[in-house]
Amino acid sequence: MKRFYEGKSVLVTGGLGFIGSNLAIRLLELGAYVTVVDSLIPETGGNAFNIEPVRDEPKLSVRTVDVRDVLAMERLVRNQTVIFNLAGQVSHIDSMQDPFTDLEINCRSQLALLDTCRRVAPQTKVIFASTRQIYGRVPEEQLPVDERQPPSPVDVNGINKLAGERYHVLYNNVHGIHTSVLRLTNTYGPRLLVKNSRQTAIGWLIRQVMDGETITIFGDGLQLRDFTYVDDVVEAFLMAGANDTANGQVFNVGAIEPISLRELADLLIEVAGTGRYELVPFPPERKAIDIGSIYVDDRKIRRVLKWRPQVDMREGLRRTIEFYRANRAHYWGAPEPALA
Amino acid sequence: MKRFYEGKSVLVTGGLGFIGSNLAIRLLELGAYVTVVDSLIPETGGNAFNIEPVRDEPKLSVRTVDVRDVLAMERLVRNQTVIFNLAGQVSHIDSMQDPFTDLEINCRSQLALLDTCRRVAPQTKVIFASTRQIYGRVPEEQLPVDERQPPSPVDVNGINKLAGERYHVLYNNVHGIHTSVLRLTNTYGPRLLVKNSRQTAIGWLIRQVMDGETITIFGDGLQLRDFTYVDDVVEAFLMAGANDTANGQVFNVGAIEPISLRELADLLIEVAGTGRYELVPFPPERKAIDIGSIYVDDRKIRRVLKWRPQVDMREGLRRTIEFYRANRAHYWGAPEPALA
Repeated sequence: MKRFYEGKSVLVTGGLGFIGSNLAIRLLELGAYVTVVDSLIPETGGNAFNIEPVRDEPKLSVRTVDVRDVLAMERLVRNQTVIFNLAGQVSHIDSMQDPFTDLEINCRSQLALLDTCRRVAPQTKVIFASTRQIYGRVPEEQLPVDERQPPSPVDVNGINKLAGERYHVLYNNVHGIHTSVLRLTNTYGPRLLVKNSRQTAIGWLIRQVMDGETITIFGDGLQLRDFTYVDDVVEAFLMAGANDTANGQVFNVGAIEPISLRELADLLIEVAGTGRYELVPFPPERKAIDIGSIYVDDRKIRRVLKWRPQVDMREGLRRTIEFYRANRAHYWGAPEPALA
Repeated sequence: MKRFYEGKSVLVTGGLGFIGSNLAIRLLELGAYVTVVDSLIPETGGNAFNIEPVRDEPKLSVRTVDVRDVLAMERLVRNQTVIFNLAGQVSHIDSMQDPFTDLEINCRSQLALLDTCRRVAPQTKVIFASTRQIYGRVPEEQLPVDERQPPSPVDVNGINKLAGERYHVLYNNVHGIHTSVLRLTNTYGPRLLVKNSRQTAIGWLIRQVMDGETITIFGDGLQLRDFTYVDDVVEAFLMAGANDTANGQVFNVGAIEPISLRELADLLIEVAGTGRYELVPFPPERKAIDIGSIYVDDRKIRRVLKWRPQVDMREGLRRTIEFYRANRAHYWGAPEPALA
């Protein structure tokens, strides 16, 4: 990995966000020249403190640019070897309340980035962060889902992310840009957004447990999910960026094994030493976009890229809670109503 | 059908286009109050002459509005019983050259129309014209494709139409708007755009044959396709609009039987009594977005809505050519390079 990335120029969109910042830090360790782009839209995952450990790195350049600003993006994509394309609107609930902003960020800006690459940087490789959300509800007997499962998104965010990944595959197949798509499940770890529940439920759960509060789990809590530690996800991005067999491919990125939301809550409370949880019936507006159990078959990325998750849930949660204990002031915002 | 539509208010977007105008004419016959909306964007299917036969109908209202004009559309969707949503950018090649216009029309405007219905006309039913283009290339052994086939669009238009139909299904499932999606194959008949090849290959073929020219077919001409006569497609729209079992459903709309492009050319030349064809290797930029044979399994619409195509290819082509012989001046534009 060091052989590939050392001295290379890479761009990370959404690079002050959760996964983007962890990826940028790792790329700097590998000796890459890293340009981080982030809109720092309030309430989303972007947080200047996320890159604190590398703030004075001479190989790091940080640009506060919105991916919707096509002209500014054009200047940034020139001469990059790899673009890790992680900028996105990630809140499912926000996408239902303001579908047009989601469309601008997750469809139009993705198409614009790819079209800019086609015009001014056709040699660049683009690795896109997609989501298992595109599968929607999957009948129990079809789990785990592999990449051939027909997408059936249950919210605007899922529909737009699906279009976003389809654009990436299309530009690989038709315009000769090299692209690769990772369908992420539930990533957790240091730098996860915890000040609100917009990024993923687990961030909010971690925060509540650390604050000794009561987690609210909707339904019976037996819904299964994949949780992947961020270092493992970062490794998947690095492998996809460095490996030409990933070109034009879509990969599920799963966990060591799926666990239920109740098991997650139990483990979290045990590792933190504080907190409790309660089960509450689904409110109707949440039930409408709930998807039950979902976990993925990720044998493809394990076979093609030799990727394998390394960090188990207990260790991952321990590191995460340790990180927030040390850096709490930079991540805790005002309290919000409980969601799970 | 008359019992359902008589006296009802219906809106047809893209209503001066090929299918939209045939649908509007039929709806007027059934006694509906019909508002036709069309942007009349040059080079696309909108043509004021298409509604010539009903021009003086007191129950017809024609509005030149672009579906991207959200405020103007809001005024038009109020108090409609059914919206037949046929406005779209349909050229695959244009979508590759200008993906952003395609996105605005096929994604953003669809989302806007649905969101407007949610806000001001939640009782309205919306029938959306989708396309088999969303399936992309399908391996021979998986033909015919039914609605459960994973979409794999091979151009920007297919990706955006996929998002468009997903929005319709989502708004049905989550927001309680009633919607239904028809995945059309290759529709032909009177009022088909023939002045250029933007709408569908068959329009251009009909024109060339009638002009005694040589049709260019790319490849070996053995690619199979479904061709559906426009009256049969109109009937599918009317059935979906009148039948609550269609709510939230996606239906393929196929043909009596698939035929090859060569068979189509032979039949066309025979019916017209003029023209010839030649087979030419695919130019690379066309090969990149070609999809080989594709035809659909439409047993679902036949079972659920009792729809069945009635007009065979020979009769359909005869009526079509007769229409253009009588109305040539209103449909022939300047010649364009051959495409097939």
